[in-house]
Amino acid sequence: MFDQEMAKKAVENLRSVRKRRPLVHNITNYVVMNYTANALLACGASPVMAHAAEEVEEMVSLAGALVLNIGTLSPPWIEAMLKAGKQANALHIPVILDPVGAGATRLRTNSARRLIEGISIQVIRGNASEILSLTEDRPWSGTKGVDSVHTVDQVVETANALARELRTTLAITGAVDLITNGERVCRVMNGHEMMSMVTGTGCTATVIIGAFLAVCQNPLEAATTGLSYFGLAGEKAADKAYGPGSFQIALLDALYGMKEEELLTGAKIQG
Amino acid sequence: MFDQEMAKKAVENLRSVRKRRPLVHNITNYVVMNYTANALLACGASPVMAHAAEEVEEMVSLAGALVLNIGTLSPPWIEAMLKAGKQANALHIPVILDPVGAGATRLRTNSARRLIEGISIQVIRGNASEILSLTEDRPWSGTKGVDSVHTVDQVVETANALARELRTTLAITGAVDLITNGERVCRVMNGHEMMSMVTGTGCTATVIIGAFLAVCQNPLEAATTGLSYFGLAGEKAADKAYGPGSFQIALLDALYGMKEEELLTGAKIQG
Amino acid sequence: MFDQEMAKKAVENLRSVRKRRPLVHNITNYVVMNYTANALLACGASPVMAHAAEEVEEMVSLAGALVLNIGTLSPPWIEAMLKAGKQANALHIPVILDPVGAGATRLRTNSARRLIEGISIQVIRGNASEILSLTEDRPWSGTKGVDSVHTVDQVVETANALARELRTTLAITGAVDLITNGERVCRVMNGHEMMSMVTGTGCTATVIIGAFLAVCQNPLEAATTGLSYFGLAGEKAADKAYGPGSFQIALLDALYGMKEEELLTGAKIQG
Repeated sequence: MFDQEMAKKAVENLRSVRKRRPLVHNITNYVVMNYTANALLACGASPVMAHAAEEVEEMVSLAGALVLNIGTLSPPWIEAMLKAGKQANALHIPVILDPVGAGATRLRTNSARRLIEGISIQVIRGNASEILSLTEDRPWSGTKGVDSVHTVDQVVETANALARELRTTLAITGAVDLITNGERVCRVMNGHEMMSMVTGTGCTATVIIGAFLAVCQNPLEAATTGLSYFGLAGEKAADKAYGPGSFQIALLDALYGMKEEELLTGAKIQG
Repeated sequence: MFDQEMAKKAVENLRSVRKRRPLVHNITNYVVMNYTANALLACGASPVMAHAAEEVEEMVSLAGALVLNIGTLSPPWIEAMLKAGKQANALHIPVILDPVGAGATRLRTNSARRLIEGISIQVIRGNASEILSLTEDRPWSGTKGVDSVHTVDQVVETANALARELRTTLAITGAVDLITNGERVCRVMNGHEMMSMVTGTGCTATVIIGAFLAVCQNPLEAATTGLSYFGLAGEKAADKAYGPGSFQIALLDALYGMKEEELLTGAKIQG
Repeated sequence: MFDQEMAKKAVENLRSVRKRRPLVHNITNYVVMNYTANALLACGASPVMAHAAEEVEEMVSLAGALVLNIGTLSPPWIEAMLKAGKQANALHIPVILDPVGAGATRLRTNSARRLIEGISIQVIRGNASEILSLTEDRPWSGTKGVDSVHTVDQVVETANALARELRTTLAITGAVDLITNGERVCRVMNGHEMMSMVTGTGCTATVIIGAFLAVCQNPLEAATTGLSYFGLAGEKAADKAYGPGSFQIALLDALYGMKEEELLTGAKIQG
């Protein structure tokens, strides 16, 4: 039922991250900085957060991947993201964008679009409403703050067309995750509903994909396998948790403690 | 001994938050953003953090309540708070202010006063020293950084007069919490001393009241019942904790797991 | 084998922090603000985070120590650090600098040097690569983001010379911590490898030293005993942890719960 080749690739990618410890440069939001840094460490990568326009080009030059996240954006940060992204492009360092809250305000929607126009982005990870807001005809998708008001299934066709138009890979997370590059569509059934009870779970999915992008040249595979690993860690964490507080902590433990065999047998990927 | 009507209202408010999942817009400090977002999720609300002047009016228009917190303030953030607050007023969205560190520096005291003068604020939540600093004759109340040097009992009369003068509700937290709108005074005996060993507990009390304000039109009731629920969660968390680290986590679990029956029997409200 | 006099001083300093609850003013990075505030509370101190140029001089005047940390620096923050540092100097309040990522970008290396030139700093805490970047001839030490590419042993001689040149105390943390004022060298063997799996552990070591500096006039002793206490807490936390998530939480519990007798017998200080 599930794709065994993709499960094997998930294991390979995780092994590579743990072995090569890629530096992942984040220009991200204040809310999740600590948690996503810890998630990157837990999965084996090495995080750095740096947002000053004066240093982002130098910093990204040391990195294996660049994560851009507009969760608490302001105009100077967007400029820094553009600078870092262009430098990443010049050095063939993969870029992943998390358009947090796009569709809720014009600043967020427009900023996400400016980043997409100005930078070659390998993966965009968002919820269904955020992704929908990136299309021409649905700029105000009704994103409720940072929460989706659409399901993944409602946006499959739109996502495929958008991925082709933008020449990127879209990773749309929800109860089932949908990953598409416009030609191939993968689905990840891993995950647990408790993940929606912790702030920044989406942002954390994004950085995990970022770490996988640093070691895997195929964006569709990096995103799909990264989300499967992350979702499976969520399942394991839910077994240990008494609520969202202990879940958040157990999730870091699970990312760190994930055995290759567990991932091989636990990955629920279709596609 | 305790007010059973208020305990029933606490249950009703918690039920409403969990059912309606109000969006709570926060313009708050860097230290607590992650924790207060998680606390809002744990109590059933939906948090969003957004501070850019370019988007706060749009974002607050989607919200059920606005939380303003000056814990790591700088002038551009105060301007954004004023913009958001005025828009909230125009749309009759309730506003709660947390004047963190007012009384410690002129910037904090003056910023808190500017917000109070420029916006109609339904609840101000602070410790005794912070609240004292908002009165005409005690601008430098000796707040030690962000910690109080006064007890709640020392400021009851001042608080009643201030609430009347400002036409707002004051929620002064400490070993016993005092809530006053200048006419009625309530006290909440819930809580645990371990709460003072975790950073941002006061800020978290504020966002819980914010969530309750989104579903309850009476500020005195929203503040009183919110603090009782939060304090009772603290008591439950202390039973599970080995120190302030595990307490912080158990507190999120307790907010999430609170049963209506527990709140009904555990609320210690006088007034 | 280990220095019993230093172990006794560690106990004395911890006792003083817990008794006097010094206010520690932090101008620090977004990633660790919450965690280091909680670590300061857990060890008995009182943290405040404030970065606005308009208030840092007033705030530091209330403090027992000032912590400067460039982990997510931008130019306005450096100006605020200089202002606060000069005021601290004028009031004889000790200052500790954490040059996070110095050696990785010019902005970080140059900012660290500007702070060192403009302020009298009692302790500089960094990893080996960061400290190396502060020397004339090794400005680009190859710091990998915020991680060291050198061991402590590789920089002993350089550190001694640098401490003499800068007239400060250097605390270089790694598997073994090295503390030198250019005349006396101490080593701390406490700690656990899990500490490198949590973001901001170095920053947390810095604030613990900051709290000890507020109660101990000898910077070498404050740094050495602070690191021993922190490292021992890490050892105790590792016993309770299932991974880096639960370790991070157990570390706060261990800082809080540390008994004087445990510290007296567990401190592994040479020098």
